[in-house]
Amino acid sequence: MVFHVEYPRTIPPRRPEGHQPAAPRYTLRWDEPVPTMISDYFAIQALDLDPAVRKEFFDRVTASFAGEEGPGAHETMQFVDEAGFTNAVVVAYWTDPTRHARWAARSPYLAWFGSSDRLGESLGYWRETLVVPYDRHETIYSAPHYRIGLARTPGSRIVPMTVNGYFGAARDRIPLSAVDPLESPYKDNPPRRREVNSLGRRLRAATPLNMTALRSGQFWVGAGEEQLTDYLDNLQPKLMRGMEYLLQSKEQTGTLSLRVMTNLDETGNPRAETSVLAYFISLEGLEDWAKSHETHLEIYRHAIAMNRKFKEKREVVTWHECFVMPEASSFEYVNCQPGTGVLPYCELLEAVR
Amino acid sequence: MVFHVEYPRTIPPRRPEGHQPAAPRYTLRWDEPVPTMISDYFAIQALDLDPAVRKEFFDRVTASFAGEEGPGAHETMQFVDEAGFTNAVVVAYWTDPTRHARWAARSPYLAWFGSSDRLGESLGYWRETLVVPYDRHETIYSAPHYRIGLARTPGSRIVPMTVNGYFGAARDRIPLSAVDPLESPYKDNPPRRREVNSLGRRLRAATPLNMTALRSGQFWVGAGEEQLTDYLDNLQPKLMRGMEYLLQSKEQTGTLSLRVMTNLDETGNPRAETSVLAYFISLEGLEDWAKSHETHLEIYRHAIAMNRKFKEKREVVTWHECFVMPEASSFEYVNCQPGTGVLPYCELLEAVR
Repeated sequence: MVFHVEYPRTIPPRRPEGHQPAAPRYTLRWDEPVPTMISDYFAIQALDLDPAVRKEFFDRVTASFAGEEGPGAHETMQFVDEAGFTNAVVVAYWTDPTRHARWAARSPYLAWFGSSDRLGESLGYWRETLVVPYDRHETIYSAPHYRIGLARTPGSRIVPMTVNGYFGAARDRIPLSAVDPLESPYKDNPPRRREVNSLGRRLRAATPLNMTALRSGQFWVGAGEEQLTDYLDNLQPKLMRGMEYLLQSKEQTGTLSLRVMTNLDETGNPRAETSVLAYFISLEGLEDWAKSHETHLEIYRHAIAMNRKFKEKREVVTWHECFVMPEASSFEYVNCQPGTGVLPYCELLEAVR
Repeated sequence: MVFHVEYPRTIPPRRPEGHQPAAPRYTLRWDEPVPTMISDYFAIQALDLDPAVRKEFFDRVTASFAGEEGPGAHETMQFVDEAGFTNAVVVAYWTDPTRHARWAARSPYLAWFGSSDRLGESLGYWRETLVVPYDRHETIYSAPHYRIGLARTPGSRIVPMTVNGYFGAARDRIPLSAVDPLESPYKDNPPRRREVNSLGRRLRAATPLNMTALRSGQFWVGAGEEQLTDYLDNLQPKLMRGMEYLLQSKEQTGTLSLRVMTNLDETGNPRAETSVLAYFISLEGLEDWAKSHETHLEIYRHAIAMNRKFKEKREVVTWHECFVMPEASSFEYVNCQPGTGVLPYCELLEAVR
């Protein structure tokens, strides 16, 4: 079987009548029902992150993944945030919420992360857990052969699709969009950035309904000279201009957080692969940027042009996974700098000891 | 259309081969997709609750329901809790999470409830918000004509079913149970009751994955003398013995909270109707009690016997709605007595001001 969820539409699709995509695209399905999927991001943060400390962190997190309750897939990444701190990240994926919760209840890493000892360190730690009902997700891949992110979970397969190549396609791919406009409850009154006192504290952030999480990836490992040069000289700079625009225009676009992460290999060295992890107050802000802003149109046109030029010989893979989130309180920041993640925008809570 | 969600089973049903129910039963469906449903309980608490204060509270809550973002249905109830405090409750139902979140973001009642002024009062206030994906719910009604709870939301209809009359039927009716055992992550290490310092504080409780909420109702308005006498002399005492057993056996049964509430009419007087609102650490504890404990077997046998005796002339209606919850942090207690709701069992958080 190929599992999928569809609702009889009460809201019309964005797809124009008779639309044919300009380039083939692919999406993810599973062989068995996956009613809920989980992306769990674990990170360490320091102004100057010692590689030995980073290795110890990665080892500690990944050691906790052993056993049948561990994730189906995980990756390591790194980025420098807007405040200049280095953050090293492990992202792990589960396709079973009960197994994930059992893992969390018994994880040696989470016991260590939860210890008050962490507050006395010079390092910061954070965890951003995305628990996503199937009907609140969509994925897209420019090629069927490269597995990354959710696409590395067992039982998944990358399949061709035609719900792509027009503005609004991402929304149309989210099953729930057939019956729910997926608006932010704070549409008319978006949260204002504020300075929080987060150092030396453990803070839980309450993320609002329909907050949209996007992990978009770029993979050019093994690309030949022509396509490598094009990627580095053309697509990557356009992408970075787009990301810079979103970072500089948080209020206009509803961007709450955006990190350009570099994927790491098993020894901790950078790969020819990046992922942008971003949170938006709603899908709508992201859509408005995608359909109308020059910085996105340039990325979009160039990616389509290269797909048409190289067809199945295209050596650069682009993809994303997008989650329109239920209301949750599952982001946790320990001794982090005040600009970390959604800290400046979300309601914050502290556990009562 | 009749909306429903079904998954191809990876877990066998509990239904015995060839099972025929001993008595007809009914369940709830909607005419349009309802991917998420919400029960929101709002309450005021006092050792001695002045009827004028209660009326002011009910008026304040229900006034906030006006407008298109308000709930599809609501009811008022009252109970005396284990510590002897009177709690007056409004329960409201939505079938659209975005509308519910928009209501919450703008509700005058929630602004008032969220004010720090509440902490200086002699009264307690609480709110327990259940946001439930469709695939995590089930309902049962002994008759098709009486509308209560979720069954009062627009677009709903009570339809006949045959997934009833055997132990495990409630689980089988929960669509997600086809692919998820719905276990508590704390199965081997259940939360221990502890005394919290909750007076003068606003506490958020984090409820664990697969916590099971059950609202079960009994309605005997207008019952004639024979059935009224039977209800008051036989079924109600059996029911109360069962509830008393669960309250006295919280640890063995995984009961976190249980309240026997009396429904009120529009003037605030008791109706011939009760509802039991209970939270269990998992569905399994509730099932174990239902299938094996004498206090439940007596309720069950008597209800079936009366159904067989009076058939469609049965004047007492019994029903329940059951939710196996995602992980959430949406229960809030303000200046409440320490035994209120899930306070003694759940992780507690305080908002950072």
